[in-house]
Amino acid sequence: MLTKLKHVALAAALALPLGALAQNQDSLFIRKLYNIALTQGNSYEQLRYLTQNIGARLSGSPQAAAAVEWSRQEMEKMGLDRVYLQEVMVPHWVRGDKEYAAIVNSRITPAREVNVLALGGSVATPANGLTAEVVEVQGIDELKKLGKKKVQGKIVFFNRPFDQTHIVTGRAYGGAVDQRSSGPSEAGKLGAVGVVVRSMASNTDDFPHTGGLRYADDAPRIPAVAISTKGADLLSSLLKEDEKLRFHMRLNPQWLPDVLSYNVIGEIKGSEKPDEIIVVGGHLDSWDIGEGAHDDGTGVVQSMEVLRLLKQMGYKPKRTIRAVMFMNEENGLRGGTKYAEVAKQRGEKHIAAIESDAGGFTPRGFGITAPNEPTFQKLFAWKPLLAPYGLHDIERGGGGADIGPLKDDRVALIGFRPDSQRYFDIHHTANDTFDKVNKRELELGGASMAALVYLIDKYGL
Amino acid sequence: MLTKLKHVALAAALALPLGALAQNQDSLFIRKLYNIALTQGNSYEQLRYLTQNIGARLSGSPQAAAAVEWSRQEMEKMGLDRVYLQEVMVPHWVRGDKEYAAIVNSRITPAREVNVLALGGSVATPANGLTAEVVEVQGIDELKKLGKKKVQGKIVFFNRPFDQTHIVTGRAYGGAVDQRSSGPSEAGKLGAVGVVVRSMASNTDDFPHTGGLRYADDAPRIPAVAISTKGADLLSSLLKEDEKLRFHMRLNPQWLPDVLSYNVIGEIKGSEKPDEIIVVGGHLDSWDIGEGAHDDGTGVVQSMEVLRLLKQMGYKPKRTIRAVMFMNEENGLRGGTKYAEVAKQRGEKHIAAIESDAGGFTPRGFGITAPNEPTFQKLFAWKPLLAPYGLHDIERGGGGADIGPLKDDRVALIGFRPDSQRYFDIHHTANDTFDKVNKRELELGGASMAALVYLIDKYGL
Repeated sequence: MLTKLKHVALAAALALPLGALAQNQDSLFIRKLYNIALTQGNSYEQLRYLTQNIGARLSGSPQAAAAVEWSRQEMEKMGLDRVYLQEVMVPHWVRGDKEYAAIVNSRITPAREVNVLALGGSVATPANGLTAEVVEVQGIDELKKLGKKKVQGKIVFFNRPFDQTHIVTGRAYGGAVDQRSSGPSEAGKLGAVGVVVRSMASNTDDFPHTGGLRYADDAPRIPAVAISTKGADLLSSLLKEDEKLRFHMRLNPQWLPDVLSYNVIGEIKGSEKPDEIIVVGGHLDSWDIGEGAHDDGTGVVQSMEVLRLLKQMGYKPKRTIRAVMFMNEENGLRGGTKYAEVAKQRGEKHIAAIESDAGGFTPRGFGITAPNEPTFQKLFAWKPLLAPYGLHDIERGGGGADIGPLKDDRVALIGFRPDSQRYFDIHHTANDTFDKVNKRELELGGASMAALVYLIDKYGL
Repeated sequence: MLTKLKHVALAAALALPLGALAQNQDSLFIRKLYNIALTQGNSYEQLRYLTQNIGARLSGSPQAAAAVEWSRQEMEKMGLDRVYLQEVMVPHWVRGDKEYAAIVNSRITPAREVNVLALGGSVATPANGLTAEVVEVQGIDELKKLGKKKVQGKIVFFNRPFDQTHIVTGRAYGGAVDQRSSGPSEAGKLGAVGVVVRSMASNTDDFPHTGGLRYADDAPRIPAVAISTKGADLLSSLLKEDEKLRFHMRLNPQWLPDVLSYNVIGEIKGSEKPDEIIVVGGHLDSWDIGEGAHDDGTGVVQSMEVLRLLKQMGYKPKRTIRAVMFMNEENGLRGGTKYAEVAKQRGEKHIAAIESDAGGFTPRGFGITAPNEPTFQKLFAWKPLLAPYGLHDIERGGGGADIGPLKDDRVALIGFRPDSQRYFDIHHTANDTFDKVNKRELELGGASMAALVYLIDKYGL
């Protein structure tokens, strides 16, 4: 607590040199940004189009191409100084049409179908599927302790649930997700024939959550699915009754050749320091189910809204402000990687990058990875200007996957932090749809990002 | 801002005398409360029963009686020191089965049906309905300026929308609701024959929002309906084309004799100061549509959960802690009034009353009406203990309708403040259903209330 109070005092001390007049101007400017966002916002209707007219848009899909062209056109309409595409080759994985899984048990006739989704990047099963006994583990450590003898020829069932005691659900996700990302290769190394992963979810329902896996170079590639949380509970309880039960899974996903795709970039040129760049972004691609609404349609439309709001305010930025719609966050991060590569080649100086990729819920703050302490303190000094909008969690730590590759000794990487409670109920599921997004919550997020961009532009970092 | 910083400093100064050890104990206790709430909570399943097995429960209805008996049994199960019913006679209004409204316009054939709900307490129309020309106003002031000549014989259409620039939506509600509560009588005084009120809503959809009206003693009682926001927009735009269009409404609600009902009260007796009472409550009744989930099933189950959590922690309170399920908040406030009357008769000393009646969304803080400045400062001093749970908005102003009548020179009236963005999308509509409640958000709210009750009990007010 004392540490926190010290920060408040320090922040106040740093805030004072701005002068009461500047603070008052800033507070009025920010108030007006929110007013426009809440009464003349454009992002909700944009999101409706992206989610309902284009829909799910995995990298390499026709829908991803449509999302590129749509966001280019949307930014063209805004009369920005420049709108352009940045080429990037993306992986192209397709789910196939044969996804099926069932619990096979002498006491259950017929086999009991369960809801699964192939993990993104999974290889296929044999055409008729594979059926094997199941070994349930709570994580990779337990798997390793079991060793080859007990794993060989089996399907490994990773069933460690979210730790619900975390107040911010992202921490529960972080504590469980290794089962999905590394589990398949760790199981493959021990001779497993397939993997079933409990969905990375805050809630209990019938919707499986997909998400990327990472096959290690030194491990056999075995097929892997996510099972819904209800399905996982069922499988676990049936295993307690009959440890010899078998699991059947059939998948026919495919890896196709890489596809040419794009990051979509719009910018307002700075009037005084055009070489200092502030990025605000989200990712255009989504998983191939649902509508990619909270992940990350909301980040895309909020980022465009930041530029639109500043233009509507008649604000002429000193620095260059860019909205970047990154491609391929979900299964490759090629867009974020490419953007940073090109920036480096061109010697561009990014002073801040803000990413919205945690859902379009009520804003709570920003998580910051700053290059040095004075930059942290400069950002913390703006807390009193942001607090009236519920932005209290302006804290150390955070950023975003797409902006991560920009990290250097100059840039502040900043993750927009919305309320986290509902995100992992729908993340990577067929349930991530437009109707889960609240218009005001979405608009408050765009305005919050615009307010921070304004302060960074006006005062530098 | 300076004022705010001064409060922080003052709060810190007041917090220090507690001592670092006590603070640490409190912080551990509160952390454990949240852990239990999030992993062994009971409130979500209780809410499922209340909303789905009992459902909507307007005062005087059989469902309201069921809710009384259910909550009594739920508290009996908890092994409290005392569970009892407090008799209260409640009004009994029923909606009837003939609710219908339509826009009648020579250019629209047949008449265009629109979604309405009678306002709670409205009188009926003639059996065949009433049809009249419409005069649209933005509020009571504009209505009064029009005067009798322009209003006589017409249906008055109050169409002032929510001011969306408020960050906390309750303020927008507060700025619009006089149209619903006082509008019918003000229109009646000027000779209007009926009233249509734009729904008190943050969003735009087809669901009308009901809610209570208050007929003045000196005004003719005319029938009144809420129209959905989409219906209001339609009516307004059609009126611009044809100011002679007519509105048809047919309602057959009835006032029946008052019914005997109850506040339901459970308490843990204080071990040191049993005569000092801390109340935590919500209201059992709801409107007669939807399921009364966020209004106020969540407040009811959170209040019971506070007692259950403290018992599960093995906490023996110094003071008496009561959960009160108030009856008849929606259309009479008889339960809250009765509770305060009885408390006064018995000379009971209430030191704090916390009400949850703003939805079961993610907790943001508490709004406080304290009897004096030291009490405010004592409550503010606990901010550092509550901030880790996102409870930043611990502010002056607030309370609750049911606890309002307890106001005296001793009691702190405290309103639980959840995130407000979604509440007025569903408030008083058929859409206020169990599926709109997120389990973790609900549980975080119960834990937040329990944490505050614990601190008040331990340190007094």
